[in-house]
Amino acid sequence: MAKVAPRTLSGFMELPPAQQMKMERMMEVLRRSYSLYGFTPLDTPIIEAAQVLLAKGGGETEKQIYRFQKGDSDLALRFDLTVPLAKYVAGHYAELSFPFRRYQIGKVYRGERAQRGRFREFYQADIDVIGDGKLDILNEAEIPAVIYDTFTGLGLRRFKIRVNNRKILNGFYAINGMSEKAGEIMRTVDKLDKIGPEKVKQLLIEELNMIPYKAENVLDFMAISGSNAEVIARLENFRGMDAGFDEGLDELIAVTKYLADFGVPEENFAIDLTIARGLDYYTGTVYETVITDHPEIGSVCSGGRYDNLAEYYTDKQLPGVGISIGLTRLFYVLQEQGLLSDEIVTAPCDALVLPMTSDLSFAVAAATALRQGGVRTQLYGEQKKFKAKMNYADKIGVPFAVLVGEDEMAEGVVSVKDMCSGEQVKLTPAEAAAHIRAAVDKRNDTPLISF
Amino acid sequence: MAKVAPRTLSGFMELPPAQQMKMERMMEVLRRSYSLYGFTPLDTPIIEAAQVLLAKGGGETEKQIYRFQKGDSDLALRFDLTVPLAKYVAGHYAELSFPFRRYQIGKVYRGERAQRGRFREFYQADIDVIGDGKLDILNEAEIPAVIYDTFTGLGLRRFKIRVNNRKILNGFYAINGMSEKAGEIMRTVDKLDKIGPEKVKQLLIEELNMIPYKAENVLDFMAISGSNAEVIARLENFRGMDAGFDEGLDELIAVTKYLADFGVPEENFAIDLTIARGLDYYTGTVYETVITDHPEIGSVCSGGRYDNLAEYYTDKQLPGVGISIGLTRLFYVLQEQGLLSDEIVTAPCDALVLPMTSDLSFAVAAATALRQGGVRTQLYGEQKKFKAKMNYADKIGVPFAVLVGEDEMAEGVVSVKDMCSGEQVKLTPAEAAAHIRAAVDKRNDTPLISF
Repeated sequence: MAKVAPRTLSGFMELPPAQQMKMERMMEVLRRSYSLYGFTPLDTPIIEAAQVLLAKGGGETEKQIYRFQKGDSDLALRFDLTVPLAKYVAGHYAELSFPFRRYQIGKVYRGERAQRGRFREFYQADIDVIGDGKLDILNEAEIPAVIYDTFTGLGLRRFKIRVNNRKILNGFYAINGMSEKAGEIMRTVDKLDKIGPEKVKQLLIEELNMIPYKAENVLDFMAISGSNAEVIARLENFRGMDAGFDEGLDELIAVTKYLADFGVPEENFAIDLTIARGLDYYTGTVYETVITDHPEIGSVCSGGRYDNLAEYYTDKQLPGVGISIGLTRLFYVLQEQGLLSDEIVTAPCDALVLPMTSDLSFAVAAATALRQGGVRTQLYGEQKKFKAKMNYADKIGVPFAVLVGEDEMAEGVVSVKDMCSGEQVKLTPAEAAAHIRAAVDKRNDTPLISF
Repeated sequence: MAKVAPRTLSGFMELPPAQQMKMERMMEVLRRSYSLYGFTPLDTPIIEAAQVLLAKGGGETEKQIYRFQKGDSDLALRFDLTVPLAKYVAGHYAELSFPFRRYQIGKVYRGERAQRGRFREFYQADIDVIGDGKLDILNEAEIPAVIYDTFTGLGLRRFKIRVNNRKILNGFYAINGMSEKAGEIMRTVDKLDKIGPEKVKQLLIEELNMIPYKAENVLDFMAISGSNAEVIARLENFRGMDAGFDEGLDELIAVTKYLADFGVPEENFAIDLTIARGLDYYTGTVYETVITDHPEIGSVCSGGRYDNLAEYYTDKQLPGVGISIGLTRLFYVLQEQGLLSDEIVTAPCDALVLPMTSDLSFAVAAATALRQGGVRTQLYGEQKKFKAKMNYADKIGVPFAVLVGEDEMAEGVVSVKDMCSGEQVKLTPAEAAAHIRAAVDKRNDTPLISF
């Protein structure tokens, strides 16, 4: 029979088992961290009516969308988790209580040009808090705590949550009579990290026709840095010139005020006036997160405050704040950089039971006892030589082999062999379960990311 | 602005938050149970090249498939998790160790006619063990244990795992000179549950032109029942007449032999000779699982042994055994029948912190302490009257409200109010965390399914 090559589409991640275990661990950390902050898990369809998904229409995204007909229906695959959330909140409005806090970890689809590290199918891991008409600034103040707990939960220590406020930026441009060009200026300033201040200044002057001292004004403002207290002191100099600016500054003060109470160390936090994020969407606090030793990765967790989640679906004013982690890309980069721990157990099981008797009753009962003791247990039933069995144990990387021969059966014990140290001890099945659990829990207690 | 109705496509499940929490719990039980048996989690793309996905081609399924073009690519959405597994195992053959045991819980797509309780997007939860060339019968013997642990883990007690062996059926038809009609006979016998033996006999005679005593032979055979020992004793009467039958009988004996050691009570298990499952796929042991008090639901977990997983992709002979749970449908039915417990906590959080002071430092620190103590905590920041805050707590169904006023702040405590009993106690944040955890763990210790 002619065979079809079992290929996977380019831009679609499909991991080997041991790597998939690490990905699962990553998702588990996210679920736990998001849950601890009182976000409820949601699951929305991957396919939506194109008319619903593209209600906002236009833009760069539309070209990338997977859109197709099925029967008479014009369908599309979701390209983010925000539009489905808007649809969900508008559609279930009457059943929900506000503020409504949800997390969603799910696959989204964008038909981008395939290139290394770019995915067409990828996980996003989002949280959002949605208010009904109003939403208190405390929700914005809490977001850095979620980010901090999530990344430290993954094992990262050296990362920085960068925060800004769009009202401060808009206010600054208004004060300087640059409101009309604000969008273009922000897009240019966004290149600071990449090309440096001199080149940005040049672009501002040459491409946006700004007079040099105004361009310098912009760069001076963007260069404001230091401790939270220092930055805020500098910003206070602008107070009273623009109502929006003042509002943004008050919000920024509120966002920084409770950081310590939220458990966020100041070294993991910085006010950064260069951050703007999505220009037509965010209206208040904006967030980015960078890994200190790997700035080239860019922001691994971004988001912000928006005023109107679902205006295409409902007249209700639904302000919110949210962040998103591009999970597939983050995993890919961490894996590429060798930053994922090899300490945690990635084998399919913690114990491999190797029966060496013709009657298997005792081996089966031992496997059952291990499982009842919470040990992930594989019972090896193949008729192979002992060496082949041990080779298999090695290859799958199982922490413990559990040998059950005539002697063990007669004594009512199993021989537990530590596959790392080679050490072997005889224990009852219940003792073996406790022994293996303790060793495996210890190994899994190490963080996923280690460097 | 004109609004687009925020509708969800028919045949696509989108749950309200409290129900979604129950669905998450269900998936968690499955992940845990599958993991305990040494199955490793896999995640494969939802989109595949149509040529790859439809390598087997033809059949009823093809019409239901979501297939579309994107650029030059002919793409399709997976319609089960077996074809992607075949592709995965063939493609990653060199990296895998056999037997290879994987579980996958993922969405699949079938454009069936929409009707109540039928889904076009639905979760399957599959396990499979794949051998390289050979696969020991012990793997087939273990499957009932996985099914038993999974369903008891969900809280079900009254269910039955029905087991048969295709070799026994084929052997029986060969012995009776009915091999040519075996497929048609099995399809007719499959209706026994629905239309009863008399009507099946009539169909066998009228539609398949069987002579009456042969039809009776078939029905007599199908009616064999009793304890495992009784059924096997009856089947032993046929030994020696057909090599395939004898092989099937030996396999059935092996599958039943270790049930007790696997921890499967005999009341949850039955040999049922009427079961055949997918006619062109399974070759040995086959499984179905029915909920005793709800036979109308049909089988909630089915599968069997097959000889060649990936023949469309590789020359390697890859026999396997697997089962699948149609998770979305199972959840839907359990929900409809009111069989899901209302005891487990389905609120977004376990504790809702209600600050009643102007400085929020202490309330924020208390929320942080609760989270550090493992309590899913929402900090309520909206400026509302006390009554509105308590209404919100009621509406989201949170088990505990944590009140933080001037008095509490002065004393360094919080007031923990049990939203069920109304009881209120003052505790330090750390004590509150332990108190709330204990109460919530107790509630969540109840099984998901309860009746």
